[in-house]
Amino acid sequence: MSGTGFDVLARDGAARLGRLETAHGTVETPVFMPVGTAATVKAMMPDAVAATGARLILGNTYHLMLRPGAERIAALGGLHRFMNWPQAILTDSGGFQVMSLASLRKITEEGVAFRSHLDGSKHLLTPEHSVEIQHLLGADITMAFDECTPFPSPREAVEASMELSMRWAERSRRAFVARPGHGIFGIVQGGVHPDLRERSAARLVEIGFDGYAIGGLAIGEGQETTFAMVEATVPFLPEDRPRYLMGVGKPADIVGAVKRGVDMFDCVLPTRSGRTAQAFTREGTLNLRNARHADDPAPLDPECRCPACTGFSRAYLHHLVKSGEILASMLLTQHNLTSYADLTAALRVAIRDGRLADFAFGGATP
Amino acid sequence: MSGTGFDVLARDGAARLGRLETAHGTVETPVFMPVGTAATVKAMMPDAVAATGARLILGNTYHLMLRPGAERIAALGGLHRFMNWPQAILTDSGGFQVMSLASLRKITEEGVAFRSHLDGSKHLLTPEHSVEIQHLLGADITMAFDECTPFPSPREAVEASMELSMRWAERSRRAFVARPGHGIFGIVQGGVHPDLRERSAARLVEIGFDGYAIGGLAIGEGQETTFAMVEATVPFLPEDRPRYLMGVGKPADIVGAVKRGVDMFDCVLPTRSGRTAQAFTREGTLNLRNARHADDPAPLDPECRCPACTGFSRAYLHHLVKSGEILASMLLTQHNLTSYADLTAALRVAIRDGRLADFAFGGATP
Repeated sequence: MSGTGFDVLARDGAARLGRLETAHGTVETPVFMPVGTAATVKAMMPDAVAATGARLILGNTYHLMLRPGAERIAALGGLHRFMNWPQAILTDSGGFQVMSLASLRKITEEGVAFRSHLDGSKHLLTPEHSVEIQHLLGADITMAFDECTPFPSPREAVEASMELSMRWAERSRRAFVARPGHGIFGIVQGGVHPDLRERSAARLVEIGFDGYAIGGLAIGEGQETTFAMVEATVPFLPEDRPRYLMGVGKPADIVGAVKRGVDMFDCVLPTRSGRTAQAFTREGTLNLRNARHADDPAPLDPECRCPACTGFSRAYLHHLVKSGEILASMLLTQHNLTSYADLTAALRVAIRDGRLADFAFGGATP
Repeated sequence: MSGTGFDVLARDGAARLGRLETAHGTVETPVFMPVGTAATVKAMMPDAVAATGARLILGNTYHLMLRPGAERIAALGGLHRFMNWPQAILTDSGGFQVMSLASLRKITEEGVAFRSHLDGSKHLLTPEHSVEIQHLLGADITMAFDECTPFPSPREAVEASMELSMRWAERSRRAFVARPGHGIFGIVQGGVHPDLRERSAARLVEIGFDGYAIGGLAIGEGQETTFAMVEATVPFLPEDRPRYLMGVGKPADIVGAVKRGVDMFDCVLPTRSGRTAQAFTREGTLNLRNARHADDPAPLDPECRCPACTGFSRAYLHHLVKSGEILASMLLTQHNLTSYADLTAALRVAIRDGRLADFAFGGATP
């Protein structure tokens, strides 16, 4: 088989239970991908990431091309070996980060010229180069290079940007070297305009990808609009390919998007929150810095199977946070990723059983 | 049995292979105790600490009394349960830290009045209060409260301070509540003066303790003097009690002190170094920040069994350090503690086999 494989095993309304086949293992969908920006899911040992249930993580092309460099990672055996993560990896294209992190950006038809936020060095990222970097990293899933339009932007700007992204998508697809178990996903753009979303989706399907992402959302437009754009896009995507809503989100966002036919998600929220004392629990979000936890012998979430919940009290986690201890970040990140993995696992069971309409997962009711 | 138990199983010169029995398990000596200052061995999950081979860790009374507070920890079930460390814990008395961290210290016969370095709150630490705090924490091994004289100090000051510490040792011993598996150690003081060390040791033996520490060393006097003070003290300590050289040290310091009859050690070096990119390996100390590691596919130490060495390259560890990733601290701390645990394990084998004279452990030849 060339490309990644995808089978829909069950449906419940628009939602699907799926199986994504990659060169580094099978991934059940709906799936949440922990973010491993700089070749590490922050504050987590790789085996702890796997213990949360994660089987697919996301790496950032922009960060890795600048440090330590894609050629270096390739020489060291690729990203899987470099970071000791033997399971599947999806890499983004660098398009989003180059817009948000790099300085002195200049966008042309060719690509994006920019200076590194680390040392000011000059770089040019093109669709061909982005795909080549992702190949050097050894990504199971490569993302097409796209431009992310800020929100809000005038419709004309969004349209021109989407059309550029579609031309870049075609160049990305052409640059991609097909290999068994390795796929490339196109990214639907078009801002908050349903007709542009439809046109973008149709163009990508015409090019043909192993999966389809919905990009340029969760950047301030609000959940209602995000969901509306998902609804405006999904009908124009093929039934037999995975759909990935990029950069989403909170538990309730994920539940709502799954109900609208999305299969894959990534977000820094569970990991970043873990480093800032926020915990996602079945009773909602807790701030462990809050003094009300100081004497509480109860676990963070009595139903959770993670080490933070089975081994420690809220009082202890509060103490670690107050003391600035690294272990606070470690435990809360592991809890949050477990919580997200358990949320998607519960969603898969609900879809299989045709009970998604009644789905409730603590604070995650959409 | 009241108190901790100790059996000498084998001897090689002055060195001993021993077995220390505590309420939370048996500890083979010579032993290195990882430092868990604020109820956590920094950057380590408790099961990872145990995986290094550690069976006895050190907690700091000064830090814990200020945050989260000994009464709070007691109400939450004691320090073992609070930090989810089911094995043995030794707590220091607070004497050393109150001298190095607190402000506005005032030392009287009664004890030390000081202000917290955290919030400026006023506290009084006396021998009785220190022992009570250690009881509240549930320490397997309680340390007598002592004054640590700075180095260098005039002989008269060292002598007066030592005599005060001996009166405090007696009060500490009296305040200690005997329980099976729980012991209290006295601390020999006397600076760099062999006759004061002898007098201090004799006084402590007269009082009678479960073990004897050698304190007030490794504070700038140099390895040769440290060893000379160990030699000036050990002959006056009972053969059937463990001996603990506080705050020591580098691998070579430990080897040298074991050869001179010391059984127990603690030091922040392996943990602190792990957070500043320093790794203790069989070929010496490596600085992972150094650019020469950037492309090196070799493990940190090919003979080491720790996750940092079995799962990752020097190039990856260098990348984590350069990127300021928490995982760098986690992996290097685990490596360093494994390295220290393996050093003491190798020392135990060498003593058992009568081969200590030829002992070599990579960079740890004394």
